Amino acid sequence: MQNPTAAMLVIGDEILSGRTRDSNMNHLAKELTKHGIDLKEARVVSDDAQAITEAARSLSAGYDHVFTSGGIGPTHDDITAECIAAAFDAPIGVREDARAILQTYYERQGQELNEARLRMARIPDGAALIDNPISAAPGFILQNVHVMAGVPVIFETMVASVLPTLTGGAPLLSQSLRVERGEGEIASALTAVAEAYPDLSFGSYPFSQNGIYGTNIVVRGQDGAQLDQAMTALAEAMQT
Amino acid sequence: MQNPTAAMLVIGDEILSGRTRDSNMNHLAKELTKHGIDLKEARVVSDDAQAITEAARSLSAGYDHVFTSGGIGPTHDDITAECIAAAFDAPIGVREDARAILQTYYERQGQELNEARLRMARIPDGAALIDNPISAAPGFILQNVHVMAGVPVIFETMVASVLPTLTGGAPLLSQSLRVERGEGEIASALTAVAEAYPDLSFGSYPFSQNGIYGTNIVVRGQDGAQLDQAMTALAEAMQT
Repeated sequence: MQNPTAAMLVIGDEILSGRTRDSNMNHLAKELTKHGIDLKEARVVSDDAQAITEAARSLSAGYDHVFTSGGIGPTHDDITAECIAAAFDAPIGVREDARAILQTYYERQGQELNEARLRMARIPDGAALIDNPISAAPGFILQNVHVMAGVPVIFETMVASVLPTLTGGAPLLSQSLRVERGEGEIASALTAVAEAYPDLSFGSYPFSQNGIYGTNIVVRGQDGAQLDQAMTALAEAMQT
Repeated sequence: MQNPTAAMLVIGDEILSGRTRDSNMNHLAKELTKHGIDLKEARVVSDDAQAITEAARSLSAGYDHVFTSGGIGPTHDDITAECIAAAFDAPIGVREDARAILQTYYERQGQELNEARLRMARIPDGAALIDNPISAAPGFILQNVHVMAGVPVIFETMVASVLPTLTGGAPLLSQSLRVERGEGEIASALTAVAEAYPDLSFGSYPFSQNGIYGTNIVVRGQDGAQLDQAMTALAEAMQT
């Protein structure tokens, strides 16, 4: 059985200018892998309405699930909610449920739910809210797109609350073998083992560490017993 | 004058499974920013021929320059060169100039240029080689696509040798202001300053550090004097 597929859309000039190093992609990738959902593609686009809308539409059509990060705060450069609404021709405005969440949060802090903060209650019609226990402003799910915050700790919390609601396939298991020989030396033996196990995927990643050149071979698949067999075959092939 | 635009294509299952954290994107982003080329989009795709070919074709058509990383080694999962050739309908085979480079390198190391290693001499017709002073196997440039290694130290060396050959625009300058107030509190003052300087881009990034919630405001633009003015205006606006 094929696992469900997913794509990620990272939104933010600060990633593309190199000012900030994205960490949400790696977190989501690991969590999806554990959950049996295959992350097939990730895109980073700038805070540009057309770029966000087009990417969301294209990824939504191409994959079972889409996860976005970034651009849902209170400032003028936070345009993700509008863009996702536009991608699906959904009306968007301040929604009462989202406004109530923000109102409660800011009242408790003795702060005002001003016009800027109220922007964070703009949710497309028909979307389900994603809880934000850290700073209240909710994410949302519209069709197959999960719109989440860019701040890593909030993104991670939202991922944790969303993933259990999605049906995953068999988790992708992986094992790795470290070989202290270059890729070019082991390539043909590796190919032979890979061809003997067509259900598994074999990746080879060169490394150089303290003057030692070598290769990490990573084997991935859903069947643990088959994976064990392949690792044994691999270890033998690499000794010759 | 508009700066040239660029996109990056990261190729590799190991990024999408979460096993490896990509660092090439952040490096390229910083270098392009310094060089006055605007990185507008980045995509990560898996070791899948159709995904690589389609992404390369689409990014090549959409941006002035494309930079790829990953998938040019000697093993069966290294299919980038074939895919880029396919994207432009260019024939591909072992090229004499690339073979000579590898031959010299492996002879000097007392190693054999075997069939697997010879794969790394497969270069599309019409491509220019990119020097690899570390492990010899060259990258290449086909039309506006720069095909480079995934191993960060090699990728970075290739970027360093390629960038001086590209005409950059004015480097994007940036200054930032740290404000110990939440985004929602400063949003309207920030918008007012941003509207007064339409040539500059204003980004706001919330942080929480040792219990302090605040916002980093980053202003970017090509005109240093204007940037200075805007920062002064911003600092004043944030004091009220």
